[in-house]
Amino acid sequence: MGPGIDLPETSGYRLKTKVLGPALHTDQLEHERLGKPTALAVFASDALSSTAYATEEILRVLVPVIGFLAFTSFVLPITLALVTVLVILIFSYRQTIKAYPSAGGAYIVTKDNLGLLPAQVAGVALLTDYILTVAVSTSAGMAALYSAIPSVYPYRVPAALACIALIAWGNLRGVKESGRMFAVPTYAFVVSMFVMVGIGLFREVTGTLHHAPLPTQHYDVGVKAMYFFLLLKAFAAGGAAMTGVEAISNGVPAFKKPEAKNATSTLMVMGACLGSMFIGISFLAAKLHTVPSEKVTVISQIARATFGAGAAGHIAFYFVQAATMLILVLAANTSFADFPRLASFHADDAFMPKQLTKRGHRLVFSNGIVALAIAASVLVVVFQANVNHLIPLYAIGVFTSFTLSQTGMAVRHIKLREPGWRVGLFINGGGALATGVVTIVIGIVKFPEGAWFIMLLVPIMVALLVRLNRQYESESVELAHEVEAALSAPVLRRHAALVLVSDLDRPTAKALQYARSLMADEVRAVHAASDPDKAQLLAERWDQLGMIRVPLDVVDCPDRRVERSVLDVVADELADGNTEVSVLIPRREYTHWWHRLLHDRTADGLARTISRLPHANVTFVPYHFGSCEISAEERDGYHQAHHH
Amino acid sequence: MGPGIDLPETSGYRLKTKVLGPALHTDQLEHERLGKPTALAVFASDALSSTAYATEEILRVLVPVIGFLAFTSFVLPITLALVTVLVILIFSYRQTIKAYPSAGGAYIVTKDNLGLLPAQVAGVALLTDYILTVAVSTSAGMAALYSAIPSVYPYRVPAALACIALIAWGNLRGVKESGRMFAVPTYAFVVSMFVMVGIGLFREVTGTLHHAPLPTQHYDVGVKAMYFFLLLKAFAAGGAAMTGVEAISNGVPAFKKPEAKNATSTLMVMGACLGSMFIGISFLAAKLHTVPSEKVTVISQIARATFGAGAAGHIAFYFVQAATMLILVLAANTSFADFPRLASFHADDAFMPKQLTKRGHRLVFSNGIVALAIAASVLVVVFQANVNHLIPLYAIGVFTSFTLSQTGMAVRHIKLREPGWRVGLFINGGGALATGVVTIVIGIVKFPEGAWFIMLLVPIMVALLVRLNRQYESESVELAHEVEAALSAPVLRRHAALVLVSDLDRPTAKALQYARSLMADEVRAVHAASDPDKAQLLAERWDQLGMIRVPLDVVDCPDRRVERSVLDVVADELADGNTEVSVLIPRREYTHWWHRLLHDRTADGLARTISRLPHANVTFVPYHFGSCEISAEERDGYHQAHHH
Repeated sequence: MGPGIDLPETSGYRLKTKVLGPALHTDQLEHERLGKPTALAVFASDALSSTAYATEEILRVLVPVIGFLAFTSFVLPITLALVTVLVILIFSYRQTIKAYPSAGGAYIVTKDNLGLLPAQVAGVALLTDYILTVAVSTSAGMAALYSAIPSVYPYRVPAALACIALIAWGNLRGVKESGRMFAVPTYAFVVSMFVMVGIGLFREVTGTLHHAPLPTQHYDVGVKAMYFFLLLKAFAAGGAAMTGVEAISNGVPAFKKPEAKNATSTLMVMGACLGSMFIGISFLAAKLHTVPSEKVTVISQIARATFGAGAAGHIAFYFVQAATMLILVLAANTSFADFPRLASFHADDAFMPKQLTKRGHRLVFSNGIVALAIAASVLVVVFQANVNHLIPLYAIGVFTSFTLSQTGMAVRHIKLREPGWRVGLFINGGGALATGVVTIVIGIVKFPEGAWFIMLLVPIMVALLVRLNRQYESESVELAHEVEAALSAPVLRRHAALVLVSDLDRPTAKALQYARSLMADEVRAVHAASDPDKAQLLAERWDQLGMIRVPLDVVDCPDRRVERSVLDVVADELADGNTEVSVLIPRREYTHWWHRLLHDRTADGLARTISRLPHANVTFVPYHFGSCEISAEERDGYHQAHHH
Repeated sequence: MGPGIDLPETSGYRLKTKVLGPALHTDQLEHERLGKPTALAVFASDALSSTAYATEEILRVLVPVIGFLAFTSFVLPITLALVTVLVILIFSYRQTIKAYPSAGGAYIVTKDNLGLLPAQVAGVALLTDYILTVAVSTSAGMAALYSAIPSVYPYRVPAALACIALIAWGNLRGVKESGRMFAVPTYAFVVSMFVMVGIGLFREVTGTLHHAPLPTQHYDVGVKAMYFFLLLKAFAAGGAAMTGVEAISNGVPAFKKPEAKNATSTLMVMGACLGSMFIGISFLAAKLHTVPSEKVTVISQIARATFGAGAAGHIAFYFVQAATMLILVLAANTSFADFPRLASFHADDAFMPKQLTKRGHRLVFSNGIVALAIAASVLVVVFQANVNHLIPLYAIGVFTSFTLSQTGMAVRHIKLREPGWRVGLFINGGGALATGVVTIVIGIVKFPEGAWFIMLLVPIMVALLVRLNRQYESESVELAHEVEAALSAPVLRRHAALVLVSDLDRPTAKALQYARSLMADEVRAVHAASDPDKAQLLAERWDQLGMIRVPLDVVDCPDRRVERSVLDVVADELADGNTEVSVLIPRREYTHWWHRLLHDRTADGLARTISRLPHANVTFVPYHFGSCEISAEERDGYHQAHHH
């Protein structure tokens, strides 16, 4: 703050500080180190929460077509197939953590081993999936809510939007990835799921579990190929369970030392939890014959059947629903941490707008957060917060990035041949193959229902990013081109100052005073005559006041395009190719924003137009209202002269 | 255009020229002189068109309450009472035309005789009524349309909005008040109404007119006072017929010579047409027992009944509907001519934003046109293009301005005492009294249905305009305050130039070159270190390149608020109170708009912030991309260095 000049903050900034908290300083940027239990809660909420809807999505594909066969023959095998993919993934990611202990996200691994272009594909695929995670998780969270409280159902869309807005706000404030906030809902969910599955198993074994009657219909699909396609479709739908598995490998540096080792063991625990919960829930669904319905989730039906109708059962049921809702909301929150960071990687490599690399008021990537919130909100509105309709778009992105990053790991093993590279190559090669096959399966079977959209979107986006990268590069090349030569360029021979005059008043006087301090070779005043009568009057007053030594040029402006007329005058001045022109625009500074509204903002437009010319330098000479004292008599005199 | 520098028009301007036509020059501003028949068409469409709904509005008040008594006893007397008021008005306006042959609108007459404040009331009242005219006329036009083609009914709101948009576009292009466009629909309407009334009278006399059965219900209102109130309500609803009567007195200068005489006789003809059409339509409605309904207008029912069901009858019916729709749309167009002009009067007197006095691309008051279109569209949407719901807001404004302008005329007669002033005083005094009473009646009986809104709005608006006027005045006083002293103010002792540096690149080199041409007492480069690592690198490069004689100040910016940090530096520089500071901001000029999107627009924000300080002059030093040639090798070199 300059001594003697005390500048208050603007009201906009004060509001920002109220809403987001005081600005954080750049050196406050630091990472909390997480112990294993907390890290599990922080990084696994996305993956674990998908068990809340994965089984349901499998059933939604099967039950309407093949009826009870879904329960008796297919749910469990499909779940087991998915868990097999999960196991392969978990072991693949162990390799990644070992190789990239600092940050092993798909973008970095792919960029490092396959190059920048494949990295864009992996990154864009993952970004679209982060957007979908927010939409799917908040929608599934609302489903958990209205399964418990049916009257919420009609308000699910605004409720989901409010949820997204709240999470975005929290992230703009810079929610620390603080353990406790995550730990409580995540562990509550995991514990309640294990309790539910445990009780279910116990009651099944003891024969006290009440099975719903099997659906009587059984459609014969006929052709075997059709069965096969159906099962693949169910498999693809269940693939949603695998999203979020990559989170731990992204966050290795956040673990306590030894980071890689702790991250690996956390990864194993997460895999074990996810796998067993998924199998347990699918098992109970198969036994209970839970038919998916529109307004009640499968998991809430299982909870109701397992816990029974007693008072304790009711409490347990509501607890499960609450824990499910919270972990799903947390899963959305995880995307709000991942998306802006990944987008900033793209932007750092000049493949996305530079604005995404800027840390805002609270040190978070504010632009990325806002972009994600908007994109996810659009999806929620378009799909009316319906998980079932969002699922076909989901998972293909994440499997694309799995495939690319596993391929990258395989290539790395071949290149570096570090000790144990053969085992690594086997694991990551297997992982790449498995996830590649799954990606293709998902792409084919979900194609008609929405995967086509993602399969179109990703290449289009990648093409755009590449185009954008070219632009940034060509700009960078030009900006850095022969800077030394540019620095030693001689001053132009002539310096002309043009003062733009709209009236003979104090702002003009101020601009003329500034013009004199420039000591230019030539000073002229220019008035664009959009109103010929006014121009005539101005010229007369200018001449009468002989004291102004600066000549006034009145320029015709018959089409009232002041900007264009001034542009022509400046262009004339520049025509010799050896003149530096300073165009001085008196700019009135008002004390209140609404005073500003009462006037044209011609100054900004003029500056923009004139800047189109090289060596045309536009200067705003500020005039501050209230900077001179005026007697009451003068005010009255004016009033008399003008109104009577 | 400067020789040697060829600047193409911007794409925005080219689009504007396509949509609105080429720019008109100020000296093309002229008024077509109109002969009497054309003038009648141009100025009377608003007044005449209101016969399309005035009778219906009277019936809508009466029929639901007193049933058949409306037809047998009341429609005609109420119509005659309104026509009496019309006659008084016509004779009053003859006086106004005589006294103000150049322009005798309510605003000018009131301002001239009663003062600026009453003029604001008259003006605001009239402006609100112009907005309502657009909403009511387009809505009534749509009613004429869906009475003929019922399937249009569900689309009446978007159709009305499209209609407003079309009229606004036409006016932005600068529709000449060209005779033919107005003459055809106006005369078609007048002729078709006279033919309809004539046929109706003939068939009534010959007994071939088929009367609908009288509504059987007849509610006894009981208390006499209730009857009286009801009749006043019907009278007030019919008052809508009087809007637009003032149009001729506004437009006297547009008449051929002798203007006043021609205007007066046109006024008389208009009065006679309006009065006889109104009486004729009400007469037929009374005889035919036309009950108002939601989807078919009264006038269309009359037309159907009068012309009969034959082929000729059908053609005549559709002709009437088409003529009615067209004249109603023209009536809306009239408001688009009057509103912007009246608003510009307010703005000329500094009671409305100055922007309203600006003639746009095509010499019309574009801002007023756009404002009117938006306001009327809002009304159409809110009231769902329902004339019946809009009517309670209507007419009170126009009668307020009638009263004020007639009172003004009366005051004028007393003051000037010109020959015949006693007769004039009698006529205008009577006019003021009659319109004053009608204003009060409308205010009371329509109060609960919507007049309260206008009665609140007008004083609030007037208070706002007065506040705004004070602001403009205080600004004017300050701007003109001791200009001579300001012109002779000495140059400040010291001139410091600060070059804002974000990187060591060509734009910075350009700014440094410009800085040298200023020959300031001190030149410094300033970098706000929002990214400390980048700042460090920059400082090192700056030092290594010993050739830059300008010292670089790296300013801490821990909260990444570059604007604030720079502001503090400038404030420091200004602290001695005798320094003129030039802040030079390198501004990159891109060739395509989307290239600009890829970058922060920090320059504009910086300029705005720094301009808050007195004697802090911000200069944009433009750097134009594409202004230096770069070899393919250099491009590739960059690519190599950055990607491999």
